[in-house]
Amino acid sequence: MGKILLENIISEGEKRDVYIDGNVISRIVPAGTALPNAEGAEKVDCSGKVLLPGMVNAHTHAAMTLLRGVGEDICFADWIDKIWLEEEKIDGEFIYWATKVACLEMIKTGTTSFYDQYWMLPQAEKAVSEMGLRAVLSYVHLDHYDEAKSAVQKQECTDMYRMSAGWPDRISFSVAIHSVYSVSEELIVWAAAFAREHGLKINVHLCETEKEVLDCKARHGMSPVRYLDSLGVLGPDVVAAHTLWLDGDDIGILADRKVSCVHNINSNLKLASGYRFLYREMKDAGINLCLGTDGCASSNNLDMLEAMKTAALVQKAWRNDPAAMPLDELFSMATANGAAALGMNAGRVSEGCLADLIIVDTGSSFFLSNAPFMANFVYSAHSDCIDSVICDGKFLMRNRTVPGEHEILSQAGRLLDRIR
Amino acid sequence: MGKILLENIISEGEKRDVYIDGNVISRIVPAGTALPNAEGAEKVDCSGKVLLPGMVNAHTHAAMTLLRGVGEDICFADWIDKIWLEEEKIDGEFIYWATKVACLEMIKTGTTSFYDQYWMLPQAEKAVSEMGLRAVLSYVHLDHYDEAKSAVQKQECTDMYRMSAGWPDRISFSVAIHSVYSVSEELIVWAAAFAREHGLKINVHLCETEKEVLDCKARHGMSPVRYLDSLGVLGPDVVAAHTLWLDGDDIGILADRKVSCVHNINSNLKLASGYRFLYREMKDAGINLCLGTDGCASSNNLDMLEAMKTAALVQKAWRNDPAAMPLDELFSMATANGAAALGMNAGRVSEGCLADLIIVDTGSSFFLSNAPFMANFVYSAHSDCIDSVICDGKFLMRNRTVPGEHEILSQAGRLLDRIR
Repeated sequence: MGKILLENIISEGEKRDVYIDGNVISRIVPAGTALPNAEGAEKVDCSGKVLLPGMVNAHTHAAMTLLRGVGEDICFADWIDKIWLEEEKIDGEFIYWATKVACLEMIKTGTTSFYDQYWMLPQAEKAVSEMGLRAVLSYVHLDHYDEAKSAVQKQECTDMYRMSAGWPDRISFSVAIHSVYSVSEELIVWAAAFAREHGLKINVHLCETEKEVLDCKARHGMSPVRYLDSLGVLGPDVVAAHTLWLDGDDIGILADRKVSCVHNINSNLKLASGYRFLYREMKDAGINLCLGTDGCASSNNLDMLEAMKTAALVQKAWRNDPAAMPLDELFSMATANGAAALGMNAGRVSEGCLADLIIVDTGSSFFLSNAPFMANFVYSAHSDCIDSVICDGKFLMRNRTVPGEHEILSQAGRLLDRIR
Repeated sequence: MGKILLENIISEGEKRDVYIDGNVISRIVPAGTALPNAEGAEKVDCSGKVLLPGMVNAHTHAAMTLLRGVGEDICFADWIDKIWLEEEKIDGEFIYWATKVACLEMIKTGTTSFYDQYWMLPQAEKAVSEMGLRAVLSYVHLDHYDEAKSAVQKQECTDMYRMSAGWPDRISFSVAIHSVYSVSEELIVWAAAFAREHGLKINVHLCETEKEVLDCKARHGMSPVRYLDSLGVLGPDVVAAHTLWLDGDDIGILADRKVSCVHNINSNLKLASGYRFLYREMKDAGINLCLGTDGCASSNNLDMLEAMKTAALVQKAWRNDPAAMPLDELFSMATANGAAALGMNAGRVSEGCLADLIIVDTGSSFFLSNAPFMANFVYSAHSDCIDSVICDGKFLMRNRTVPGEHEILSQAGRLLDRIR
C-alpha cells in the first residue's frame, strides 16, 4: 500500500500535515512537523485547501443513474410502477455501466462510501471495485407476495452471500427488505434471520409515504415500524431509509431498537412523498440520523452536498425555525453517522480512521466570506469545489479529474442510445 | 459592434447556427445554412452544446456577496436588524468590489441580467458596467419613518436619476420602496410618483413574512397589498419580491394591477419566512411570475439554476403534487418572465431578441439520460455546466473562464480581511 503526505492542508481550521499510511490516517500534525515515518511518502501540497471526511451516502440505488429522468413529475405510486417496469428490461451490462457512472458521479461530488440497494450484485460489485469506492451492496428481497419469487430470492441471496467472500474488504454484502408493502411476511422474516445469522446489515424502505402507513395499518393493524418490530426485524443492524411518516410511538421504537434512519430529502420532495422529516424529535430520541440521495430516478443526482443544503433549508422552513438543523449535526449526518450505520471506521478526519477523505478548493466566490467554512460549504458552494478525493488511502480524483471518466460516459451513452 | 456565429449549437432540440450581429440575435437557421451577412463573424464551434437564454435574476441585492454568512441560522426579524447594522459600515469600495464579485458569480452561474436593490449606485454601476451584465439598479427608499432621512433620500434619488443618464444602455435606473414596514407613507407615495414621472420600474419587498402582514393589518387595517394599492403604488411597472403571504384578495389585486411577482425560495426557506408560495393560484390569476435569488446574506448564493431546482421541489412537496410547477413554466420564470418584468427584449432565443445567451456543456454524467434536456438541466445538473455566457452580444465567459476573475476575488478577499 502507498504512503501519502498531505501538506499544509486546513483541517478543523488549523494548517496541518496529514500522513496516510496504507488505507489509514496515520498522523495528523501541525504543518511542518517532522514525520520520520512518512519518508518516501508522496507529498501533495494542499496549501489553501480544506480537508474533510468523504461523504457517506447512506441510501441510494446506484445503477439508477441510467434511469435518471424516467418518470418525471409523477407521484410515488405511479413512479414506482413505472420503475418496476423499466427494471424488468435492465441487464448486467446496464448495471455495470450505470454503477460505473454512479461511482464517477459520487467521486465528483465528494462521496467516498455508499449503501446500495439494487440488482445484479456481481456486475455492481465489479464496477465499484474498479472505481475504488467503499460500499455496502445489498441483495434486494422484493417478492410482491409471490411464493415462487420468494423461493428464487432466498436462493439467490444465499448464493450471492457466498460469492461475496471474494469481494475486496472495502465492499460488503448486505440484505435488503424492499418495504413492508412489497415483500411477504415470510420473506421479511427469512431475510432478517439470514442477515442476523451472517452478521449482515439490513436495509429497508420505511414510512416513505403516507399511503404506505395507511395501507400497513389497514392490512396489519399497525404502523410499518410496529409491524417490522412485531416480526423482530428492527435492531442496531437495520438502516431504514426515508422514515418520513412517523408518529411518536414509531420514533420511540426506532430509538429503542437503535435503528439508523436515513433522510432522503430531494427524493421525498420530488415525488411529493412529504417534507415533514421529524429531525429534532428523532435526534432527541437518540436515533443515529444519516443522509442519502436515493436513486437518480427520483433525486435526480447523487450529490450529497446538494442534499445537505436542501435538508437544512426545508427543515428550517417547515419547522419555522432557522436553527432547526445545525450545520455540525447536518455534516455528521452526511459523514460520521452514515459511516457508523454502515459499520465503517470512517467519516471523520482522525488518526486511526480509514483514509476516506475529500479535499476542498475554496478559491471560488462561494467561499469569499467571513462566515465559518461549513456555512459556505453547505449553503453557498457546489460540489465542483471538491478538488480531490481519496478512498481507502488511494486518490480517486485529483484536480477534478477521475481516470477513465470519458470512457465511462461514452460507453454509458452508447448503452442509453441503444435502449432509448 | 462585433459579429458572432455560433455553429452547430442545439437550440430547442435542433442543431442550428445562430448569428449574433451587434447585441442582437440576428438569424437562427438550421446548421450549415449559408449566411452571407455573417461573413467576417467570429465563428465558434458549439457542437454538442446547448443554447439557452441567459437567466434573469429578478430580485437580488448584488453587493451582499461580501455579507454572505452574516447572520446565519437566525429568523428574518433578527436577521434584518443585523443586516441594517452591518450596512452602516459599508462604503463605496465595498460596494464596488462586492458588486464585481456578484457579477462574476452570476456570470459563472448563467445569469445575464438582474434587478438590483442596494446602496451607492455609482459604485455599483461602475462594477456592472465593467463586468458586462445587463441590470436594473434601484435606488432604495428606506427612511424608518424618519423625516430627515426621507428628505435626504428624495434628493439623492433625484440626483442619482440625473446621473443615470450617463449609464450605458444596458444599465437602467429604477426606484425601490424597501417595504411597507420600513418606509413612511409619505415617502412611499413620493417614490412611486417619481418613478411614474420618469417612466421607471418600482421594486418592493412585499408580503415576505407573516409578521409583515400582521403588523400592516394592525397599523393600517389592511394587508400590505391592499395598503400599497390604496396609495396607488401598484401597477405594471411594479416588481414585487417574495409575495409569500397572500390571500385570495391580494392575488386578485396583484393580477388586476399587472404587478410582476418574484419568487425567492432559498431566501424564504433559509430565514424560515415560509414556503407556501401560491404558485398555481398566482399563475392562474395571470400574474407574471419571476424567479430571484435574493441577496447572498440570505440565499446564500446567486445561482438561479439552484433556485429553479429548489422552487420546483418545494412546490411539489407542499402542494402534494409532483406536477405542481411544470419545467417549461419554471424556466420561463427564470428567463422570459423576468426579462418582461424588467422591460428587456431578452430571455428568449429568438431572432430580434437581445443576445443575452448561455451555452451549456452537456458532457457530464448529470446529462446522461434519455429525459428531456430541461429535466436534466434543472433536476440533475449544477451551474458548472454553463460553459460560456454572452451578454449584449459579447462573451463574458468562455470555457468557464471570466477575464479578471482572480483579480476580483483577490481584491475582494483583501477587503474582507480588513473588515473582519
